[in-house]
Amino acid sequence: MTTTKTNLSQALVEQLEKHIGTYTFGNDPQELYDPIAYIMSLGGKRIRPLLTLLAYSLYRDDYEKVLTPAAAVEVFHNFTLVHDDIMDEAPLRRGKTTVHKKWDTNTAILSGDVMLVKVYDMLLHVPEDKLAVCLRLFNRTATEVCEGQQHDMNFERRDHVSEAEYLEMIRQKTAVLLGFALQYGAILGGASQEDAQHLYEFGVNVGIGFQLKDDLLDVYADKAKFGKQVGGDILANKKTFLLIKARELATGEQQEALESWLAKEDFDKATKVEKVTAIYDSLGIKQLTEAKMESYFDQGFSQLSTLKVNKPEVLTALKALTQNLIDREK
Amino acid sequence: MTTTKTNLSQALVEQLEKHIGTYTFGNDPQELYDPIAYIMSLGGKRIRPLLTLLAYSLYRDDYEKVLTPAAAVEVFHNFTLVHDDIMDEAPLRRGKTTVHKKWDTNTAILSGDVMLVKVYDMLLHVPEDKLAVCLRLFNRTATEVCEGQQHDMNFERRDHVSEAEYLEMIRQKTAVLLGFALQYGAILGGASQEDAQHLYEFGVNVGIGFQLKDDLLDVYADKAKFGKQVGGDILANKKTFLLIKARELATGEQQEALESWLAKEDFDKATKVEKVTAIYDSLGIKQLTEAKMESYFDQGFSQLSTLKVNKPEVLTALKALTQNLIDREK
Repeated sequence: MTTTKTNLSQALVEQLEKHIGTYTFGNDPQELYDPIAYIMSLGGKRIRPLLTLLAYSLYRDDYEKVLTPAAAVEVFHNFTLVHDDIMDEAPLRRGKTTVHKKWDTNTAILSGDVMLVKVYDMLLHVPEDKLAVCLRLFNRTATEVCEGQQHDMNFERRDHVSEAEYLEMIRQKTAVLLGFALQYGAILGGASQEDAQHLYEFGVNVGIGFQLKDDLLDVYADKAKFGKQVGGDILANKKTFLLIKARELATGEQQEALESWLAKEDFDKATKVEKVTAIYDSLGIKQLTEAKMESYFDQGFSQLSTLKVNKPEVLTALKALTQNLIDREK
Repeated sequence: MTTTKTNLSQALVEQLEKHIGTYTFGNDPQELYDPIAYIMSLGGKRIRPLLTLLAYSLYRDDYEKVLTPAAAVEVFHNFTLVHDDIMDEAPLRRGKTTVHKKWDTNTAILSGDVMLVKVYDMLLHVPEDKLAVCLRLFNRTATEVCEGQQHDMNFERRDHVSEAEYLEMIRQKTAVLLGFALQYGAILGGASQEDAQHLYEFGVNVGIGFQLKDDLLDVYADKAKFGKQVGGDILANKKTFLLIKARELATGEQQEALESWLAKEDFDKATKVEKVTAIYDSLGIKQLTEAKMESYFDQGFSQLSTLKVNKPEVLTALKALTQNLIDREK
């Protein structure tokens, strides 16, 4: 990655951080607004609004005009984190106490609700002639994100989940928001419908790829570089792409061993991770998942070549950002 | 109330019921959408969307064009009920099991979230040239409703709440949505800004009055006519207008008696209701609350006389509906 590429994305993220840091969601009652300021201050990579600004910048030079509409995507993402963390009973988010643990569940529900209203407030900052189309796309996306979350919760209670069901769930739960972020930026920038649609498809495809990468890292990350415990998904019997594929392919003794590890209630953690990983290895699950992931990245990148844009440096920055996320080791 | 008045409101509510009953929120996953169909089917008086249709009908005759935008207000109201019932740990709503009890808390959170997105989907059915103004007013209203709910929860944890704080809380939590429903219907009908504002003020004022009426009924309702236990607020030490006023006015022995009832953990329910009601009686709390309530109703009705409208039968229906709610005994 050259310095130039880094600089554009970095400059945009810095502007975004400044904008988010000074945006006033409200003050009174404090109990309602403090959690919003808190979750928004925990940082993260700001990938979604960055995608909006990059897509916009493919068509126009005045990205500072759409900082609030771009930030709306980040507020929505953080709203989903606040509510998902309640549902998942998660104690930590970005290494800090989750909202429902730092305050309480009721506060997390209600602060989340008002965050969603604030997203629509921020969406009102798009030009009036583009408001209806942006809202329609956003509503469809937000609906799919909720549907994906419900499917994810349903899968936890089910014995079996198919590969197709899993891929559709991650498309809804995480990928469509990346697609929307790009499509929305393109529309705000005045892109053609075709270009906006290609950027949407790019986002959805790499989004599915990113989730497969997450699934892979959870098992195959370098312990020294990975931020959290390697094998967490294995310990939790999480129906990731890897487990679904392994259960589909395992036969005979391997199948018995895998199913017995899934059924076991008392086990040594390190042993379970080691044994299940060994089954994955012998089935070639890592290579299978990598191939699947690559096919999504390829499909995504192929969309970019069809774009009618005249800003090679922005396109390069978009590709570099994506490549960084593909190559990440945590 | 003449037959004509009843007929207009009744016809509108019937159309609304039919419209809400056939509106498809979504199907898959069922776990997400069944709770929405359930809560929307529990009925209720549909007052908010009825107010929208009546306000619209003050200016235009084709109310059937705004059934979806009107229903949006009812969906929002039901969204707040689903999430409030989680926060209040309420087992029953309109005499039926609440969503979080019939399913679970996670389902109630997520179904509520998608309901709020669906509200904005329904708001997209307003004419495009009115979309931004309607959304801006709706967002302000929805924000205030959340703020009011947070204040209400805060009040439960506080020892003292002032009359002014209480009135502001009920304005936000319940009254502004009635004001919005009217203002929004007027705007959709093409009313002047002045008329729309007067209708908003009418709604907010009678809305505060309705809540004071609720507070009164909880203590002074006719047991035979009242749907629930008389004295429920007294038993729960709920800081209603009546209790706030009584604590403000009581002195000496009466004050001691009242505070001791509030502090007591073991008591005979009927005795507590009887004794606290007796304190209210001797302080003239019923009359004071009625006077306050009447002043809100008067302020509300005075707004109607300034409207520039030419549909006496619709105005009569609006007044009759309000009077019915004022006169209700449960």
